[in-house]
Amino acid sequence: MAKPFLLGVLGGMGPLATLDFQHQLLVATPAQSDQQQLPSVVWNVPQVADRQKALAGLGPSPLPQLLHGIEKLNQAGASHIAIPCNTAHHWFEALSRASAAPLLHIVDATVEHLLSLPKKPQRVGLIATQGTLDAGWYQRGLAAQGIDVLQPSTEELQQWFVPGCYAVKRGAVSEGGERLALLAEALLARGAEQLLLACTEVPVALRAVNSPVLDLSHDPAQLLAQRCAHYWLEYRDSYFTHT
Amino acid sequence: MAKPFLLGVLGGMGPLATLDFQHQLLVATPAQSDQQQLPSVVWNVPQVADRQKALAGLGPSPLPQLLHGIEKLNQAGASHIAIPCNTAHHWFEALSRASAAPLLHIVDATVEHLLSLPKKPQRVGLIATQGTLDAGWYQRGLAAQGIDVLQPSTEELQQWFVPGCYAVKRGAVSEGGERLALLAEALLARGAEQLLLACTEVPVALRAVNSPVLDLSHDPAQLLAQRCAHYWLEYRDSYFTHT
Repeated sequence: MAKPFLLGVLGGMGPLATLDFQHQLLVATPAQSDQQQLPSVVWNVPQVADRQKALAGLGPSPLPQLLHGIEKLNQAGASHIAIPCNTAHHWFEALSRASAAPLLHIVDATVEHLLSLPKKPQRVGLIATQGTLDAGWYQRGLAAQGIDVLQPSTEELQQWFVPGCYAVKRGAVSEGGERLALLAEALLARGAEQLLLACTEVPVALRAVNSPVLDLSHDPAQLLAQRCAHYWLEYRDSYFTHT
Repeated sequence: MAKPFLLGVLGGMGPLATLDFQHQLLVATPAQSDQQQLPSVVWNVPQVADRQKALAGLGPSPLPQLLHGIEKLNQAGASHIAIPCNTAHHWFEALSRASAAPLLHIVDATVEHLLSLPKKPQRVGLIATQGTLDAGWYQRGLAAQGIDVLQPSTEELQQWFVPGCYAVKRGAVSEGGERLALLAEALLARGAEQLLLACTEVPVALRAVNSPVLDLSHDPAQLLAQRCAHYWLEYRDSYFTHT
């Protein structure tokens, strides 16, 4: 028998996005009882140095705190680890090296999903932090599949993204949603067919204002949750007798 | 300096109620940034033997699995532990003895809240599992404060509570809410001034159907979350410099 399935969630970035990810895990898991639901251990510790500021050279690295979380999740028995924060994937390689449990990458889950669509989009708009945009993971993953990426300009990020994102982090979710919807609409107006909401605060905020752009959007955190649920269902079907 | 604050949540009973508890922690914590939010580690493992069946003598005890969760939360560094499941408080003493971190009792949080109200109710209706009702914690805690408790009959539990509760556990939250609202209305009709929703599925379900009985209800899981947030805020104000 394989190591017992236990999803480790390296969360807290931010805590509301972590909850949303846990909700997506529930939605993605067909279950008739508590016992059939996906087991997880969630390190929801938001005292992590600001990822956006660290990547902009304006603050300390979050890596030591992220490594501490990875260590705790491994000690707790995690068989897989997911990180519901796009920007934190900047430290993915260092965290993977330190983890016995394999880490699932949010970009892999997203690219695979786009390729599985009946009609592959030609051009997607990417809503993400400056750090995620600069890292180029989504752009490279999508370019390899022949999908163009349209990015927000620095001005658009400053005007809409940054204040929208920090509004969510202080609990002003609808205010954040209104600002982020303006950015989404600008990218659609400039030719994006579909959008990737590649910062975990963004889908939470757009849902709070019931934004119509959601119909044209993909949520990488949701796609990551679906991949985790898929692994759990495979395990459950193979090994699990429910009590 | 005290041991660093880290709330351990012994969850998974059920997983949706655990999420709701985490949401209540966020609501109860005024914060301007991620870093000011309450840090937690959540053992959200629903593969725990059914608590209602165990107490009815119809299934195995969940105690070994609960003890395993308590051990993992202590290993992870929990400074306090909360259990967002009323029925699981049946094993509270045994779990407390096995835990270095103190456990916070959901009934203590509830009774203290009722005593702090401007007008103490005379008679409250108690919606809970047969196991929680038989244990008598709420009845004793409230009687000591001169508050009468009105309980559902066995027939009311079988007709509305049990199917409502298991509907939530399989994800049919609105269906559960409709059944549980009928029980709530019956208790109010029989003279309860206010209600205690002392099973963590119940408030989740009643909110899903936007039931008007919520205005007359107290949610012990929410009151437990508020107590946890209170401890965090005391700690944050004393020790914490946010990054």
